[in-house]
Amino acid sequence: MPDPAIITAALLIIGDEILSGRTKDKNIGYIAEYMTNIGIDLKEVRVVPDEEDEIVTALNALRARYSYVFTTGGIGPTHDDITADCVAKAFGLPIDVDQRAVAVMRERFKPEELNEARLRMARMPEGAELVHNSYNKVPGFRIGNVIVMAGVPVIMQAMLDAVAPTLQTGVKLLSESVRADRREGDIGEPLRAVAKAHPATMIGSYPFWDEAGQPNTNLIVRSREPAALAAAMADVKAMLAALPSV
Amino acid sequence: MPDPAIITAALLIIGDEILSGRTKDKNIGYIAEYMTNIGIDLKEVRVVPDEEDEIVTALNALRARYSYVFTTGGIGPTHDDITADCVAKAFGLPIDVDQRAVAVMRERFKPEELNEARLRMARMPEGAELVHNSYNKVPGFRIGNVIVMAGVPVIMQAMLDAVAPTLQTGVKLLSESVRADRREGDIGEPLRAVAKAHPATMIGSYPFWDEAGQPNTNLIVRSREPAALAAAMADVKAMLAALPSV
Repeated sequence: MPDPAIITAALLIIGDEILSGRTKDKNIGYIAEYMTNIGIDLKEVRVVPDEEDEIVTALNALRARYSYVFTTGGIGPTHDDITADCVAKAFGLPIDVDQRAVAVMRERFKPEELNEARLRMARMPEGAELVHNSYNKVPGFRIGNVIVMAGVPVIMQAMLDAVAPTLQTGVKLLSESVRADRREGDIGEPLRAVAKAHPATMIGSYPFWDEAGQPNTNLIVRSREPAALAAAMADVKAMLAALPSV
Repeated sequence: MPDPAIITAALLIIGDEILSGRTKDKNIGYIAEYMTNIGIDLKEVRVVPDEEDEIVTALNALRARYSYVFTTGGIGPTHDDITADCVAKAFGLPIDVDQRAVAVMRERFKPEELNEARLRMARMPEGAELVHNSYNKVPGFRIGNVIVMAGVPVIMQAMLDAVAPTLQTGVKLLSESVRADRREGDIGEPLRAVAKAHPATMIGSYPFWDEAGQPNTNLIVRSREPAALAAAMADVKAMLAALPSV
C-alpha cells in the first residue's frame, strides 16, 4: 500500500523540437521546483518524440507507476499535435471535440476563427475535466491521474496554477544546505559515514565553483522528518568542523 | 535490420537534484543539438533519481533499444555517486578501481589527495574504455554502447568532445525553417495537407511571439533527403503565399 505521506509524479515531455535541440526545455526545472514546493515528489522525467507509439507506451508506463503524470506539448492546432489522441488511446477511451472546451474558446476566438484546426485543440477523451488556462483560454485537460498541459512555458505555468489546488499532496520533503568550503573529494569519506548514520535522510553532495573560482561543495540534507533533518545536519556540520584546516 | 543511415541515442540523466528542481538541467539541450549536428538522432531522454533500481532498469531499457546511451551525473567522489556501480550491475560485470584511470588522475592529484573517495571516481566496469576529460582529467568511461559522463556541464562537454569522433553516425537529418507570419491556428488545415503530401519529411509547427508581440509561427521541415526537403519546403512556401492576406 502506498505511503499516504508520499505523493509522486512523472513528467512526460512530448516534442521532437526538444530532442533535436532546436527548442531548449524550460519546463522541467520549473515543474520540478513547483512539485517540491507543494509536496509532490517528481520521480521521473521522460522526453519522447511526436510519435503515437512512443507517447502511448511512455504514458501507460508512467501512469501505472506514479500518483500523477503531467504531460507538456503537442496540444496545438496543427497535424503534429497528437497528444490528446494519444492520451485517449492510452486509456482506451473515445475522443471528440469537447463542447465545454469550445465554449471557453469562444471567449477568445471569433466564430470564423474556430476553424477545423483550432477545434482540434478542443479534442479531449471522454470523461476528461478541463484545466483552465488564464493566459489565452485554450484549456488543457485531466483524465484519471494524467494532466495534459501546453508546451509553451507561460501557458503550461497557467495550467499548473489551475490544476495544483486540486491535487493530493504529501508531506513535504524538507531540505537544508550547507556550504562545505572543501573540495568534494576531501569530504567524501567522512560524509559517507554521516549518511550511513542517518538513514531517514538523503544527503547529497554538489560540487560548484565558488566566487573565488575554487572548487567547492554544497551539501544538502533532505527528509520528511524535521527532527531527522536537524540531527543529520548537525552531524554534517560537526563533520565539517572536525576536518583539518585547509 | 536497423537502417544504417539512422543512428539513435538516448540520454539518461541521473540526479535527485534535477528532479527536486534545485539544479536546473543544462545538458539536455546541449547534447540534443550536438547529436543533431553529428548525425545521431536523440530519440529519448529520461531523468531518474540516484537510486540503484531506477538507474539499472532505465539503463537496460534504453541500451537495448538505441544505438547509444549517454548518461550524465553520479560519477563524483561521494556516497551518492552510484552510476558506475549501476552500469556494472546493468551489464552484469565486475567493477573495480581501474589503474588506467588512476594513472590519469595522478596527473592532477597529489598522492595524498588520491584518497578512498577520489579513487571511487576511478571505479569502472571490467572492459570499459576511458573517456578523456580535458577539463580536469578525471575520466568518464564507455562500456558497450553506454557512455558515462559527468553531470557538470563543462566536464560533460569535454567528455562528449572526446567520445564523439569514436561514434558511428548516420545520415544527418537536414532541416529548414520558414516564418509563417500567421497564427498557428490559421495555417493548421493547409499545413496538414502539405505534410500528408510529403511523407519522406517531418513538418513541425512552432508558435512563438514575434518582435511585435504578436502570435506567430515557425514551420520546420526535416528530412534526410535533400530533394524531399526542398520539395516539401517549396510546397510550404506556396501554401503560405496562397493564404488570404492578413
